[in-house]
Amino acid sequence: MRDVAVLGVGMTKFGELWDRSFREIGIEAGFQALVDGKLSSHDLGALYLGNMAGGAFLEQEHIAPLILDYAGLAGHHLPAIRVEAGGASGAVALHEGYLAVASGAHDFVVVGGAEKMTDVSDVEASRTVDATADQEWELVFGATLPALWAMVARKHMHEYGTRREDFGALAVHDHAMASKNPLAHFRNRVTLEQVVHAPPVADPLGLLDCAPLSDGAAAVLLGPLETARRHTDTPIKIAASEVACDTLALHHRRDLTTLDSTVVAATRAFSHARHRPADVQVAEIDDAYSIGGLVALEDLGFVAKGEGGAALRDGRFFGGGATLVNPSGGLKAQGRPFGAVGVAQVVELVRQLRGEAPNRPTAGAQVALAHAVGGTGATSAVHILERVN
Amino acid sequence: MRDVAVLGVGMTKFGELWDRSFREIGIEAGFQALVDGKLSSHDLGALYLGNMAGGAFLEQEHIAPLILDYAGLAGHHLPAIRVEAGGASGAVALHEGYLAVASGAHDFVVVGGAEKMTDVSDVEASRTVDATADQEWELVFGATLPALWAMVARKHMHEYGTRREDFGALAVHDHAMASKNPLAHFRNRVTLEQVVHAPPVADPLGLLDCAPLSDGAAAVLLGPLETARRHTDTPIKIAASEVACDTLALHHRRDLTTLDSTVVAATRAFSHARHRPADVQVAEIDDAYSIGGLVALEDLGFVAKGEGGAALRDGRFFGGGATLVNPSGGLKAQGRPFGAVGVAQVVELVRQLRGEAPNRPTAGAQVALAHAVGGTGATSAVHILERVN
Repeated sequence: MRDVAVLGVGMTKFGELWDRSFREIGIEAGFQALVDGKLSSHDLGALYLGNMAGGAFLEQEHIAPLILDYAGLAGHHLPAIRVEAGGASGAVALHEGYLAVASGAHDFVVVGGAEKMTDVSDVEASRTVDATADQEWELVFGATLPALWAMVARKHMHEYGTRREDFGALAVHDHAMASKNPLAHFRNRVTLEQVVHAPPVADPLGLLDCAPLSDGAAAVLLGPLETARRHTDTPIKIAASEVACDTLALHHRRDLTTLDSTVVAATRAFSHARHRPADVQVAEIDDAYSIGGLVALEDLGFVAKGEGGAALRDGRFFGGGATLVNPSGGLKAQGRPFGAVGVAQVVELVRQLRGEAPNRPTAGAQVALAHAVGGTGATSAVHILERVN
Repeated sequence: MRDVAVLGVGMTKFGELWDRSFREIGIEAGFQALVDGKLSSHDLGALYLGNMAGGAFLEQEHIAPLILDYAGLAGHHLPAIRVEAGGASGAVALHEGYLAVASGAHDFVVVGGAEKMTDVSDVEASRTVDATADQEWELVFGATLPALWAMVARKHMHEYGTRREDFGALAVHDHAMASKNPLAHFRNRVTLEQVVHAPPVADPLGLLDCAPLSDGAAAVLLGPLETARRHTDTPIKIAASEVACDTLALHHRRDLTTLDSTVVAATRAFSHARHRPADVQVAEIDDAYSIGGLVALEDLGFVAKGEGGAALRDGRFFGGGATLVNPSGGLKAQGRPFGAVGVAQVVELVRQLRGEAPNRPTAGAQVALAHAVGGTGATSAVHILERVN
């Protein structure tokens, strides 16, 4: 397989975009990526789209040709392919787009991720989000996605003495980062006091431990690394793209506090990219629920199992020193339009590696990692990105 | 890219399978394919799943890891990836599985297609099916999928003098074929008289012009052609795998009676496989609506535009002579579990090319073609299969 690079990136504002349609935001992000990568749409080979639940949110299935159509590209009769993997939909679409270029099937591919979640009632939206867990063995018994993650939190606290404030600290960091990100859903800072005393969602998780439902879209243009400099001065190589899965239901896992899907995807990705966790200067990790972010730091190998709490307590990943996590504000504060998240993470990291995120840290970063999760970890995707000098 | 072969196939009965769950049928088909291809699940690299609307039909998104899980494969942490493209979901999943093997990313991949459509009310199911057309510009104005295809029929009748009986003849043929297919949803024969006088659905289309909503699953095991003989005496090469898209809404097309997505996918596929339509001895074409089957014969190049009616009137594709279409009974009579259709077509063709469908024609066929459509043609997928001697 040949090397693949990100040539261009694009992203809409995340938030409650009630004045904008799914079609509009999908197209805006895609065109930004094309313009950024200096590619005429005539040279495009395929479109991949990460989208979780167009059917439930918009009563529209078959959503990839829709975006192709409204982007004015239907006349080219490109393949436009939708991929779904819950909250990892965008990241898995990126994996498929990566394979399409790496294989030589296409030279240039746009991978978009888009979701419009706030046009239906919160109850309906939550029910759709919950449907990424196991309907027959979890949801019918009353479990919800935050309730399942709350079990992970309780177990982690029990096993490792992790404190409720430890994962709460990640939300504080995320909001601080998002306050500098003009595209973020929430730009307000929050204090640990506010996080801990926020209205409970599923004990110990409160409102500020849970990412919002958002509208938004993001896109990246992929092409062969070999010719990438025709399109950009700073090609970003996709050094690894890995997807791994696990049981859909949480109670079937080997260990409640470890996402084996993340462990396996990360191990494969680091091996393929010939890097170690310590090489990663900046990472976007899935913090849809703050405890998930803590667990991710352990499962990705940034800290040993059980030490995530202490690491967050010490602010070890919040800048200055080790890997900086979630410069975008993460899912918690940048927002969580499900299908868009995995692509938006890569948009942020590309901007970091290019040095195009001036009001946020990590100047001179060379290696970055993106981590997305579907459900309670039935799917994990890990991408490692590298600045090519 | 390296050559890819189908090593094994599997399929459940299609129909109203009220006593069986989605999980059960998905697993049954997948295991059949593994056993047929003599592969231990330990050697599997990835799972691709075509599924249109698990969210609407089962309140279950994130459905690919579910199948992996219930197949007992979650412990391997393979990537399990769901692809959606309306009625072409299975065929597009096959395209992605093909790329995964052709690229060298994986050696062995199972591509499954599955849908459980009859556990919800017919109204709900029809609404979900309609959601593969354009929600904002077709459905809100009262159009349904059969109504849109009825417009194609009217226009074809107007332009080319096609008669209502011409496309009706395809339904008669489909039922005759399905009567010999133990896995088919409908095994009764019907007469042209019955088709023409069936209760109207959307004039001129009647009940017997429209494929049913079905439950069912199908799976194929893919691997490198080079080593295929370790797994089967009769490897079937995937000589071409092409997906092409078009506008989501029918009224935006260049020509109402031509699916440009099919024309483009077929042209690319024939060019890649170095074959002409006349080389194809057996084909499974998308006849979800009988007029769609007629138009497909034209768009795939089996007859000239406008001559589909005369060809069906003469029974030119019904055996003995030119390409035989739909030996399985097609979507009309074998059944239409949306996500499974594109995979089931390939299962049938592999059995035909292997000579394993003794009670149905086409002995000695070497080249076969599968054609699947999403919506009214916003997605078309064409696969060309070849027996390797």
